[in-house]
Amino acid sequence: MKISMHAFSVDVFTNILGNLSWILEKGANHAAARKFDPALLLASRLAPDMLPLTRQVQIACDQAKNSVARLAAQEPPRFEDTESTFEQLHTRIARTIDYLKSVAPGALEGSETRDIKVPAGGRTLEFKGLPYLQHFAIPNVFFHVTTAYNILRHTGVELGKTDYIGGGRQT
Amino acid sequence: MKISMHAFSVDVFTNILGNLSWILEKGANHAAARKFDPALLLASRLAPDMLPLTRQVQIACDQAKNSVARLAAQEPPRFEDTESTFEQLHTRIARTIDYLKSVAPGALEGSETRDIKVPAGGRTLEFKGLPYLQHFAIPNVFFHVTTAYNILRHTGVELGKTDYIGGGRQT
Repeated sequence: MKISMHAFSVDVFTNILGNLSWILEKGANHAAARKFDPALLLASRLAPDMLPLTRQVQIACDQAKNSVARLAAQEPPRFEDTESTFEQLHTRIARTIDYLKSVAPGALEGSETRDIKVPAGGRTLEFKGLPYLQHFAIPNVFFHVTTAYNILRHTGVELGKTDYIGGGRQT
Repeated sequence: MKISMHAFSVDVFTNILGNLSWILEKGANHAAARKFDPALLLASRLAPDMLPLTRQVQIACDQAKNSVARLAAQEPPRFEDTESTFEQLHTRIARTIDYLKSVAPGALEGSETRDIKVPAGGRTLEFKGLPYLQHFAIPNVFFHVTTAYNILRHTGVELGKTDYIGGGRQT
């Protein structure tokens, strides 16, 4: 039970992205059972000017991998945003988790005081590593995972909090 | 820059609950500007069998205070679920933040190995403190804050990710 930057980034993100995969699987199964094109679910959104499901998943992955890479002072793998099926989104999540797992705890040692720069539109946000993880990276990853869940829930997919927390895939 | 159970519970939850207050204020202002009863927003939901905005806020508060209390082996304050206005929800959030701030870092020292029991329906979930915070408390708090945001966004309130991350209230 070691409290570390690694425990609250790699471990937290790996787990919730696994849950996201599980949630998406339920979405794909729902589309198959109702015999509608799964691409309709992937294009669903909660408001006309919010991003659709596919983008929520892509961004959840990017926030997880890019924040860990910044904390570790590594160059993250780049993914093209070309996914157009549930299967491809599962692959993206799996590749993100593979990258996260490749970052050893030692690579994040001392990252709590590291200077972190995040490009945001035309400007650059600057943080120290710890507040970056607490107040930017963690909130962002959970924002996009929860919004993916909410889009699916809103469009009628049978999901519960247990699926989000991971209880569904663990039993 | 101290990595601790306190930093990833009290600090993280205090910050995001402050952002939640800010988001709700935008919701209340939206109702006032459009001249509709704010109670209609408080009763809004993303699906008929999802909880409405008021409950999302109440549960975000409860998840934050109860998880920190469990980690600190304290009895948390109990709040009646009687809020029916935005103002009352702001008060609930403020009382939650007051409680969180009353829990000193020392009270959470060693909590990573503490046995945590969470009543859930008819059964009891059991965790050690660290995985409880990583995979249950943090995901739950962010789930309900994000869902509150999504409900407001879905009903037409002008909000952006900056508001959720807290950039709005800090500038």
